[in-house]
Amino acid sequence: MTIGDELLIGQVVDTNSAFIAQELQKIGIEVVQITSISDQLPDILSALEAAQSRAAIVITTGGLGPTKDDVTKEAFCRYFDTELVEHQPWLEHVKHLFAKYISTPINAMNYTQAMLPATAELLANPYGTAAGMWMENTKGVVVAMPGVPFEMKSMLQDELIPRLVSRFKRPFISHKTIVTYGLGESAVAELIQDWEASLPPELKLAYLPNLGKVRLRISGSHTDQLVLNDLMDRALKGLYPLIEHLSFSAEHDRPVEALIADKLTQINGSLALAESFTGGALAAKFTQMPGASKYFMGSAVVYASSAKTSVLGVPPSDLDSYSSVSAQVAEAMVLGAQKTFGAQYAIATTGNAGPSIADSPEEVGVVYLAIATPERVWVERHEMGNHRERIVEKSINKALTLLYAELLKL
Amino acid sequence: MTIGDELLIGQVVDTNSAFIAQELQKIGIEVVQITSISDQLPDILSALEAAQSRAAIVITTGGLGPTKDDVTKEAFCRYFDTELVEHQPWLEHVKHLFAKYISTPINAMNYTQAMLPATAELLANPYGTAAGMWMENTKGVVVAMPGVPFEMKSMLQDELIPRLVSRFKRPFISHKTIVTYGLGESAVAELIQDWEASLPPELKLAYLPNLGKVRLRISGSHTDQLVLNDLMDRALKGLYPLIEHLSFSAEHDRPVEALIADKLTQINGSLALAESFTGGALAAKFTQMPGASKYFMGSAVVYASSAKTSVLGVPPSDLDSYSSVSAQVAEAMVLGAQKTFGAQYAIATTGNAGPSIADSPEEVGVVYLAIATPERVWVERHEMGNHRERIVEKSINKALTLLYAELLKL
Repeated sequence: MTIGDELLIGQVVDTNSAFIAQELQKIGIEVVQITSISDQLPDILSALEAAQSRAAIVITTGGLGPTKDDVTKEAFCRYFDTELVEHQPWLEHVKHLFAKYISTPINAMNYTQAMLPATAELLANPYGTAAGMWMENTKGVVVAMPGVPFEMKSMLQDELIPRLVSRFKRPFISHKTIVTYGLGESAVAELIQDWEASLPPELKLAYLPNLGKVRLRISGSHTDQLVLNDLMDRALKGLYPLIEHLSFSAEHDRPVEALIADKLTQINGSLALAESFTGGALAAKFTQMPGASKYFMGSAVVYASSAKTSVLGVPPSDLDSYSSVSAQVAEAMVLGAQKTFGAQYAIATTGNAGPSIADSPEEVGVVYLAIATPERVWVERHEMGNHRERIVEKSINKALTLLYAELLKL
Repeated sequence: MTIGDELLIGQVVDTNSAFIAQELQKIGIEVVQITSISDQLPDILSALEAAQSRAAIVITTGGLGPTKDDVTKEAFCRYFDTELVEHQPWLEHVKHLFAKYISTPINAMNYTQAMLPATAELLANPYGTAAGMWMENTKGVVVAMPGVPFEMKSMLQDELIPRLVSRFKRPFISHKTIVTYGLGESAVAELIQDWEASLPPELKLAYLPNLGKVRLRISGSHTDQLVLNDLMDRALKGLYPLIEHLSFSAEHDRPVEALIADKLTQINGSLALAESFTGGALAAKFTQMPGASKYFMGSAVVYASSAKTSVLGVPPSDLDSYSSVSAQVAEAMVLGAQKTFGAQYAIATTGNAGPSIADSPEEVGVVYLAIATPERVWVERHEMGNHRERIVEKSINKALTLLYAELLKL
């Protein structure tokens, strides 16, 4: 349950629920529903009641701040028939945080962060002033965590997961995801339909199509881990030969940029980028992952035509003759990136992401993707549709796939 | 209601709900709950029933694909006591999409996309094979849309919103958000507590703290638009003088990068970036917005030290003497970006985002942000904590704020 008016007016996307669900999965706890509700006391109370009728564990985030609009603590007191009392060690923690990290002096509102439900077991929060709360009744456990994602994440992993593991007996759960590239959902489904029909009832298959990729997820749950492993192994052995030609990552649902990162780190390789319409988003795929400095040299985000020349040495005559959206310019960009950054491998992107067409005769959605390796360089032209976000995301997926296919040949 | 097992295991973050909520807000429809459930028929049926007991309009996304794991159409048939029939015009649409965009031949599964509930009014989907469905019973309206975000977005805007507007009488709703920078949530709350206490009951205040920013959202709802406007105006007039020194964007909840984009477009200015630890994420803030080519020249994402020299001309002696995380290198980077890209304004970032420390004696969380304008260049040192994601996001916010404050002086 995520609590906060900002979710219901769409001001904030709920990323907490997916993170929590992933972590619960790992310890065999199944999520049956995710609910986002307002900061109104009656809504919280009725949602708590409904949630407890569905599940033995209810986890909430949000509404634990010091300001008046946050009422989760009050709701928990009402729901569990208890009251707020000052919690001395938590008060010390709040004072400590202010002394160490915050430039403004502590005020009366901050002190209220140490007023906590008398019957709650507290969950520590090293990064903030909001305490987590673990409370129980005859129906099960109800937990409150702060809504700020990094505070919630640390509390979940260090405080809540260990308590759940020791408190609840859980079945074994297993998921395997295989990422396929190049075919649509229904074409993949047709390819594996006989296999799908022969799956045992303990296993379930789902298709997750997304911009040029289709992920196949097989999920199983069983009280006996050996039986579950055996069912899963047999299913996978039947599946692999059918989709081998479409798939890179058989074992894990890891994004292709992570697979590239592993491979480059392993071979001590280096990578540089030259980005026009992807505008830094391709670079961010790599730099978001810790350890990128082992192989990632950098990216020349050359949005303006003049930058293509000044940073990457693209000949102005190529820009004039072929326009910035052309195979010639893509090739000059990728070679420029390889040289400027001194990298073994390089990717370049140039295209029209729209909505308007800049200085090129090509239509919106036309992109050129260039790959350079120590041995060769080549360019592909693709039409990625007419939707800006989709053009960028599909092009990034395609470019990464091209590079990874090349790295796999090593 | 978002439907799909992938949501409950955290494989996919539900971004559809926030988008839908935003669009409904605009036409005065209040969202009372967001629910994510599994692809199981019984779960969909009981969630539909619960949702209809709470609201006159229930909007679902997901579960409309051609594969076996998708059962939303079946659930709707069961719930509305009708059956699937072949819909001839939709079959033509599916055939047309395959002929035009898809390289694989159409198969039996794709044909099932034209099997639709007999009593459903269809909502067109120009981008995909899944039809939207509008169905009614005595309790109200239930709508199904595809889960693929760009298909859903176009259907929502072009098909669903116009139908909702003509079908339902709605109150007037108004939101104003003021973004403040520099003070924490409780410090802002203290500053405006008398004003907050004097707000009329029709208006509601919420605090949305996020990495160096606190957004204040005032929401109001009234059947008389003039009364609502008057209440809102009076509230804002009381608030502005209290927080003027903390705020840039009084009228709209627009991110600071959009304000910079407006300002630069207006003055015909140009911007370049030099990014080390922000790794392309700062560039992506600008290039995500259509029209970036009017002012955005590019970004040198110089992750490797050697790239700082080869792309931006940072003297190797500065890197040796001061390390890459230093005021000297930040300054050389920002001047290099200004020169290389031929830009009037430039931002440079260098720092330790962790988890490990690379080639610098500075601790994790220490960043240097440099700004260059036609008149001057300066560098600020900040400590951004010890969490990789937060360090990057806080630094980006801070750097953008510094530049915007400077542009406001023009």
